[in-house]
Amino acid sequence: MDSEKYVIGVDYGTLSGRALLVRVSDGSEVASSVYEYAHGVIESYLPKTGAKLPPDWALQVPSDYIEVLKNTVPEVLKLSAIDPKQVIGIATDFTACTVLPVKIDGTPLSELVEFAENPHSYVKLWKHHSAQPHADRITNLAHQRKETWISRYGGKISSEWEFAKALQLLEEAPEIYDAMDKWVEAADWIIWQLCGKYVRNICTAGYKGIYQDGRYPSEEYLEALNPKFGDFVSAKLDHEIGQLGTIAGTLSDKASKWTGLTQGIAVAVGNVDAHVTSAAANAVKPGQMVAIMGTSTCHVMVSDVLAEVSGMCGVVPGGIVAGKLGYEAGQSGVGDIFAWFANNYVPEEYQRQAEANGIDIHSYLSQLAESQPVGAHGLVALDWQSGNRSTLVDHQLSGLIVGMTLATKPEEIYRAIVESTAFGAKKIVETFNKSGVKVEEFIAAGGLIKNRFVMQIYADVLNMPITVIKSSQGPALGSAIHAAVAAGVYSDVVEAAAVMGGTEDLKYLPSPQNAKIYNQLFELYDTLYESFGHNGIMHNLRQIRDRVLLGETDDA
Amino acid sequence: MDSEKYVIGVDYGTLSGRALLVRVSDGSEVASSVYEYAHGVIESYLPKTGAKLPPDWALQVPSDYIEVLKNTVPEVLKLSAIDPKQVIGIATDFTACTVLPVKIDGTPLSELVEFAENPHSYVKLWKHHSAQPHADRITNLAHQRKETWISRYGGKISSEWEFAKALQLLEEAPEIYDAMDKWVEAADWIIWQLCGKYVRNICTAGYKGIYQDGRYPSEEYLEALNPKFGDFVSAKLDHEIGQLGTIAGTLSDKASKWTGLTQGIAVAVGNVDAHVTSAAANAVKPGQMVAIMGTSTCHVMVSDVLAEVSGMCGVVPGGIVAGKLGYEAGQSGVGDIFAWFANNYVPEEYQRQAEANGIDIHSYLSQLAESQPVGAHGLVALDWQSGNRSTLVDHQLSGLIVGMTLATKPEEIYRAIVESTAFGAKKIVETFNKSGVKVEEFIAAGGLIKNRFVMQIYADVLNMPITVIKSSQGPALGSAIHAAVAAGVYSDVVEAAAVMGGTEDLKYLPSPQNAKIYNQLFELYDTLYESFGHNGIMHNLRQIRDRVLLGETDDA
Repeated sequence: MDSEKYVIGVDYGTLSGRALLVRVSDGSEVASSVYEYAHGVIESYLPKTGAKLPPDWALQVPSDYIEVLKNTVPEVLKLSAIDPKQVIGIATDFTACTVLPVKIDGTPLSELVEFAENPHSYVKLWKHHSAQPHADRITNLAHQRKETWISRYGGKISSEWEFAKALQLLEEAPEIYDAMDKWVEAADWIIWQLCGKYVRNICTAGYKGIYQDGRYPSEEYLEALNPKFGDFVSAKLDHEIGQLGTIAGTLSDKASKWTGLTQGIAVAVGNVDAHVTSAAANAVKPGQMVAIMGTSTCHVMVSDVLAEVSGMCGVVPGGIVAGKLGYEAGQSGVGDIFAWFANNYVPEEYQRQAEANGIDIHSYLSQLAESQPVGAHGLVALDWQSGNRSTLVDHQLSGLIVGMTLATKPEEIYRAIVESTAFGAKKIVETFNKSGVKVEEFIAAGGLIKNRFVMQIYADVLNMPITVIKSSQGPALGSAIHAAVAAGVYSDVVEAAAVMGGTEDLKYLPSPQNAKIYNQLFELYDTLYESFGHNGIMHNLRQIRDRVLLGETDDA
Repeated sequence: MDSEKYVIGVDYGTLSGRALLVRVSDGSEVASSVYEYAHGVIESYLPKTGAKLPPDWALQVPSDYIEVLKNTVPEVLKLSAIDPKQVIGIATDFTACTVLPVKIDGTPLSELVEFAENPHSYVKLWKHHSAQPHADRITNLAHQRKETWISRYGGKISSEWEFAKALQLLEEAPEIYDAMDKWVEAADWIIWQLCGKYVRNICTAGYKGIYQDGRYPSEEYLEALNPKFGDFVSAKLDHEIGQLGTIAGTLSDKASKWTGLTQGIAVAVGNVDAHVTSAAANAVKPGQMVAIMGTSTCHVMVSDVLAEVSGMCGVVPGGIVAGKLGYEAGQSGVGDIFAWFANNYVPEEYQRQAEANGIDIHSYLSQLAESQPVGAHGLVALDWQSGNRSTLVDHQLSGLIVGMTLATKPEEIYRAIVESTAFGAKKIVETFNKSGVKVEEFIAAGGLIKNRFVMQIYADVLNMPITVIKSSQGPALGSAIHAAVAAGVYSDVVEAAAVMGGTEDLKYLPSPQNAKIYNQLFELYDTLYESFGHNGIMHNLRQIRDRVLLGETDDA
């Protein structure tokens, strides 16, 4: 009776995976299911041995990703009550750079008895940050040798990325490094599991794997980092590249059994959560900046113009949509800064009032803050509690707030913090504009779009209308759109996005009056930004802290 | 049976007055009594009419001061059970500059029917801050005309002082200005009430009345401020000066009836709360800086050296102890910044824990903060939530904190705030030292001396031992010491202080290890201090705030 075709998008987040069953003809979201990773994020102790992990480690267990498939896909089939044969394709998106060492057949080294007790054999999650010294060496050597690719990454290679984590692996666990055949993004490993074929998606290869203009960093460069690292690309990394929205392979018998889907349906090339969201918002044209706003914010935009945008995370041809340059930038802390303040710095009385009003503490603070005109708090803050990703690419930076008096109330600081992240976004937009990559629309996705207070502040600060994505499951819908393209229903992602993705009719329009005052406050933010971005005070505080915590207190 | 002699010191604070009965022979505190002013501080509405007061006004009612005498003195006599004849003198100390317009017989204009409805006829309390425009004109004109006295006040005349408040009176209520015969410090008015004679004490005349080297600002200067202000000194202000510790007169019959004391006993020249505390701590020698640490901190020190200490409140010959130069400096916010944070920025869970442990929230925060080594919070703050009195003399400045991460806890910010006030004290000490007025000892008095956590941080930051005053009623004891000198028992305040005043045996000694780290943090504090003291950002924020609150949002 139902002749419709469906696709499934699976969104792999930090703590769970979500499957979404979507109708191909119009993007209707029919059913969804979430499954939490049994091992979550491993940050303190390795479950296998109970061994304590060093600081800034973050691991995952690959089998958790398979469990997501086994649980959520059958569940959405059941919930939707459609015939599984109507599902014609599947696609996934993943956190990145989340990476693991595998044998040539895709077996994770953590699943081999001989390596299962070594933490280095596990998946290193995007927020595994202990390869900072390796990242610093990679960046510094690139500048010394004037490697041209470094400018494609705003001048810095992140500790989160493939090369930094691989160099750490080589130097801290050479036995694992030697034993691995491939250093694989989880985004690609899951596709490998689905279709039995390893294809390296252009998105992570470009943004996280320093793949530019068909090349990786040279053997000489890698040897200069570490003589044993010289053949890293040829021996462990290089592999067939797949364009986004194309088919990686077809669903294997094994994966068919896990999921209940039909063997042989299209499996799309792997992808990244932020990047697929553009398609879900139907914002895949030049000038449309999509901000995925949650605990942190990721900004993605396609363009026809190649430019060096200072402090961007990267520019990758085809990195968001095939045939266009894809730009990425980010703010390392946004919603988690709001949560940090609301969870730690709000008095009992406010909690009671929020409860009495039946609203959460964020809503209560927002209500109080909204009753004041813009600028009346006399505050300005820097949004660097979690460092600065763009435009300074410096995770040793920290928060700042200025202007408090004895009359300053928590809701005023809360508001100043929300505003500081909006100023951070404006700084990124201005940096793109100045580089010649014009931002003409600002489309918001992610958990924060539900927050009217935050959205209006962003509209007023940016002095631009803000459109919000329609789907509340943007990444999973974005993956589903890629599945539909891979299955051949649409000719490309742009066409599919126009049918299956979209934004709400409602826009947040800037108030000219508020925008004027925010312009004045932004000037002060910008002064502080340029000053504290370079004056060394935050680095000094961090050094004092770290020396004290390490007990190295003798050197001044 | 008791041949001992006693004196009474009366301390007039912002909200109440306290009488202390003290044994002359050894300074023993026999009995004390507190009386709260019925009218407290009048800041919003004039009780007489219900008329709304403008912002930054703060008034008092003179009869409240008399009520203190009528209530507390009989009470201490009763409590001590001594024969009133054994009391040989009385002295007072007062907040300053707290000033009122009176007729030639001392009658406050607010007690005359024709003026009782005019708020300008009342006492203007020290923290009446609405004469700022007048103070600015006084300061600017002094610099323009190169008046030599301006350097005795660190380059700025405060809105709190006699001339600024008088100029405001002249320009805003000329009928009151014309009707007043004398513009009198409350410190002197209360003595006038006790002995029937008006004597102008050198302390407020010097620190608050621009009386330097036997002269006031010239008639030409005053005329240039306002033609009608030219004869302000000769017509309204100038009067016989009394040295501290000398006798102003003897107790009148009327005051004897109020108090139950013997008519004819010595009434000392008026004095100021902070300044008498030096005597109570027996810290009246050059090099001994006394810090009266409460909601704000006042620093007083005598010296033989005349120097221009940048940003000091003033230097006055005989202003603390006869025959010595008296220096005063201050921090406009200290304990009230701790209270601001603890009352507004501490979560429910902390409140519960504090209650469960039977301690107040300050103690709980201190306990948590103490468990971390110095510098481990990675924070530094500026202590300007209430402006900066010394060394910048700028009440448009505001608070700043830098270094927060998502892991920063309330106890860490609390500690950083406490430290910021200690850094502020160190900045003052360094400024005195650099000016050649050496600070050799640091003696603490005031409410904060009970706080071990705060005291140890000050010792570590200053890298000096901190001694604390023995009396918990320093100002009242200090007044009593002045009464004993006025009564002729001791030859001078220094001699009396050595017998009747003193400090605890316990000292807070700096930890060399902590002092080393605090030196590093102080360097950062100092960089921020010099930067934000002059970069205009805080002024800009204040201007934006004030324009917004006044609805003047059209000018950029």
